[in-house]
Amino acid sequence: MEFLVEIEVNFPPDGDPRQKAELIAAEGRRAKELAAAGIVRRLWRQPGRWANFGIWEAPDATALHEAIASLPFYPWLKVVVRPLAAHPSDPGRS
Amino acid sequence: MEFLVEIEVNFPPDGDPRQKAELIAAEGRRAKELAAAGIVRRLWRQPGRWANFGIWEAPDATALHEAIASLPFYPWLKVVVRPLAAHPSDPGRS
Amino acid sequence: MEFLVEIEVNFPPDGDPRQKAELIAAEGRRAKELAAAGIVRRLWRQPGRWANFGIWEAPDATALHEAIASLPFYPWLKVVVRPLAAHPSDPGRS
Amino acid sequence: MEFLVEIEVNFPPDGDPRQKAELIAAEGRRAKELAAAGIVRRLWRQPGRWANFGIWEAPDATALHEAIASLPFYPWLKVVVRPLAAHPSDPGRS
Amino acid sequence: MEFLVEIEVNFPPDGDPRQKAELIAAEGRRAKELAAAGIVRRLWRQPGRWANFGIWEAPDATALHEAIASLPFYPWLKVVVRPLAAHPSDPGRS
Amino acid sequence: MEFLVEIEVNFPPDGDPRQKAELIAAEGRRAKELAAAGIVRRLWRQPGRWANFGIWEAPDATALHEAIASLPFYPWLKVVVRPLAAHPSDPGRS
Amino acid sequence: MEFLVEIEVNFPPDGDPRQKAELIAAEGRRAKELAAAGIVRRLWRQPGRWANFGIWEAPDATALHEAIASLPFYPWLKVVVRPLAAHPSDPGRS
Amino acid sequence: MEFLVEIEVNFPPDGDPRQKAELIAAEGRRAKELAAAGIVRRLWRQPGRWANFGIWEAPDATALHEAIASLPFYPWLKVVVRPLAAHPSDPGRS
Amino acid sequence: MEFLVEIEVNFPPDGDPRQKAELIAAEGRRAKELAAAGIVRRLWRQPGRWANFGIWEAPDATALHEAIASLPFYPWLKVVVRPLAAHPSDPGRS
Amino acid sequence: MEFLVEIEVNFPPDGDPRQKAELIAAEGRRAKELAAAGIVRRLWRQPGRWANFGIWEAPDATALHEAIASLPFYPWLKVVVRPLAAHPSDPGRS
Repeated sequence: MEFLVEIEVNFPPDGDPRQKAELIAAEGRRAKELAAAGIVRRLWRQPGRWANFGIWEAPDATALHEAIASLPFYPWLKVVVRPLAAHPSDPGRS
Repeated sequence: MEFLVEIEVNFPPDGDPRQKAELIAAEGRRAKELAAAGIVRRLWRQPGRWANFGIWEAPDATALHEAIASLPFYPWLKVVVRPLAAHPSDPGRS
Repeated sequence: MEFLVEIEVNFPPDGDPRQKAELIAAEGRRAKELAAAGIVRRLWRQPGRWANFGIWEAPDATALHEAIASLPFYPWLKVVVRPLAAHPSDPGRS
Repeated sequence: MEFLVEIEVNFPPDGDPRQKAELIAAEGRRAKELAAAGIVRRLWRQPGRWANFGIWEAPDATALHEAIASLPFYPWLKVVVRPLAAHPSDPGRS
Repeated sequence: MEFLVEIEVNFPPDGDPRQKAELIAAEGRRAKELAAAGIVRRLWRQPGRWANFGIWEAPDATALHEAIASLPFYPWLKVVVRPLAAHPSDPGRS
Repeated sequence: MEFLVEIEVNFPPDGDPRQKAELIAAEGRRAKELAAAGIVRRLWRQPGRWANFGIWEAPDATALHEAIASLPFYPWLKVVVRPLAAHPSDPGRS
Repeated sequence: MEFLVEIEVNFPPDGDPRQKAELIAAEGRRAKELAAAGIVRRLWRQPGRWANFGIWEAPDATALHEAIASLPFYPWLKVVVRPLAAHPSDPGRS
Repeated sequence: MEFLVEIEVNFPPDGDPRQKAELIAAEGRRAKELAAAGIVRRLWRQPGRWANFGIWEAPDATALHEAIASLPFYPWLKVVVRPLAAHPSDPGRS
Repeated sequence: MEFLVEIEVNFPPDGDPRQKAELIAAEGRRAKELAAAGIVRRLWRQPGRWANFGIWEAPDATALHEAIASLPFYPWLKVVVRPLAAHPSDPGRS
Repeated sequence: MEFLVEIEVNFPPDGDPRQKAELIAAEGRRAKELAAAGIVRRLWRQPGRWANFGIWEAPDATALHEAIASLPFYPWLKVVVRPLAAHPSDPGRS
């Protein structure tokens, strides 16, 4: 099942630069793993914001929660999840 | 450039059934054309609503507007367009 | 997978009384079927409103959409779907 | 009487880890007690968020308030309570 | 148990004047009955609007729903119900 | 003139416990005085929140402001004031 | 006591032109009377909208309601009333 | 003085096609006049919507209101006006 | 040109009392100067809040911005500005 | 392609004055560069707020994001981007 996931990172502007750099590096590695596992399908930046939209795929909301909660920035994230249903005109469905 | 497009159809519940059926058929044909043209990339229903989320691709907002305005249901649509920027961790980017 | 589904019925106050009565009767029958099929698990009225909250169970959002769209009042419904994930302290999980 | 209770935990991301761990453990114990007492009936995580939806049962809003305020994380909670009325098509009513 | 109930009447400005007059008269009679029954405790107009705030008392949300749904204007009402809990400093509690 | 006053207390969860205890005690004393003076007429907790609804009576908004600003927690309060007009069906009007 | 009153006129664009013209003329006469009575103190258009902001003066919300409800367009109005308290730096207070 | 003006056209989808065509033609002529008069400086479509953003210039809000109200579609418009102040880094200021 | 200006002061409740007292005194002096200069025309407290509504007069939004930005509390203010147009029924216009 | 960009600066009121001064100077220099590069086309202050509206031009949302993220105040900015499509009545289009 696919989900539209909107994520905003609320790391404080005056946060520790080293912690921030480490978290960004770890976040990139974890995002790659989630992509390789077929969980993160697409990912876009929201222009002008530390935020993204993503298409995630997971068996259900419980598995999706575990995947999102595995992100290093998770405690600083504001997340909105919207469930997606199949559309008969979707060119991308297999 | 890609856009996240949210579309809700506000055709009246007591609208003419024949007009509704014709519009739905025409909408399906137009959606197929837009998919074949590489403009509509993905399309999902919002569960429980006459509404969808889509990933659209167009050179700019002007071309996107023309594509959306070509939908037979256009006068009944409520549309929200969000521009999408590339994300370094996007597994789907070419 | 379970979903929290919020439904509001927007049938017009001055709508045809016979149509309204028939729709209400059909809605009750369909709700019973969805309950018997294990899709509608719980259902509550929102006090003072023609609206309800329900716990629905379906394999995914596509199946949930079909179930909601099978309600006779569907064209008049405003629906909000929230996906639910398992909680370790849920007394009701099997 | 049943209530739909939406709870979000706003514990700061950079809060003391030991305090956080102790609060989480205490919260789990208190949730079990509220479940055993028949006050918390169902509990679900909101995917991607430190937040849940629950079905609570209490004689009235005063007793409900005391139950919620007994949670160890109470000072950090943002809570929305919606009263629930019986629905004639509820499969779960006794 | 007490509830704060906010009611807005959405009867159309160009509605039938005779129907409107009859409904207003019937609404006044029903409000008196609900007051005599101890269900409506207080009632205030919102200045400048066809709307009111009320303190209602009922055993639970189910009984409250029945009381509100008994109002002649019910199909035209937009209602928001907020449950109220006892406050230790309330001068009006018995 | 009566007012519906909604008050939320935003004292920080990690605030000084002694200051919090002193403020709560002082707030209770001040609430009693305002009740004795006939300014606070009714007061209810919002279940699950450090917040209340109250019916206040004051000659005008200026006097109401002074009464609210006299609360010890005033600097931490988020207050919404709604003016109330007499309703012909109010059972509580003298 | 003064009030900030925000009024929007929702007369339908395709409403009867004669009725509209008569209502506008009557509204102007009534506004003049309310000004002469010292109830409407100031009145401004919101640019681009059939809407205004006004400073109204009335003994209380009940009298204010009667004044607003005396406007010929009243059934088509959406009104928001905000109570105003005296400010020590107000240059206009007598 | 410049203003950011957001305009949405709420002409009904099932409105009279001839009236709609005439209004669109008249709107285009009036827009040209307002541009020639230096009142409308820039104009953009909002993609996917019958709506636009514009930069308008007028001596004050009264003159701006008259200009907007001169649009043939005015009775069907929902308009939001935001006043604009000079910015020291504006490349376009003369 | 007149503006309706809504100002909320977000000075922290646990801010330095001496700084707060000095700012309040300076704010009062500056408000008097702005009143004497004919820029602040009217000013009202919002009851129960550290907030006000004001009628300000300035040649344009640029001059208004400079006036608001001259307030000692400016860095702590949340400000909403609404432009006002002349109304034919305004009793206060000269 | 043009974008309407709304930017609010949330630098804390009690932030380090030297850091603030340096950031403001650097922001001015960067804004000049973006203007010289033809990326920032117009820029206006929102009166009474540390915020602006701007017309930005960039090949796509990815380039726009890079331009906004190059602002020295970027970590403190709250940004809303709206894509703009060509309008046939735009006097400013080349």
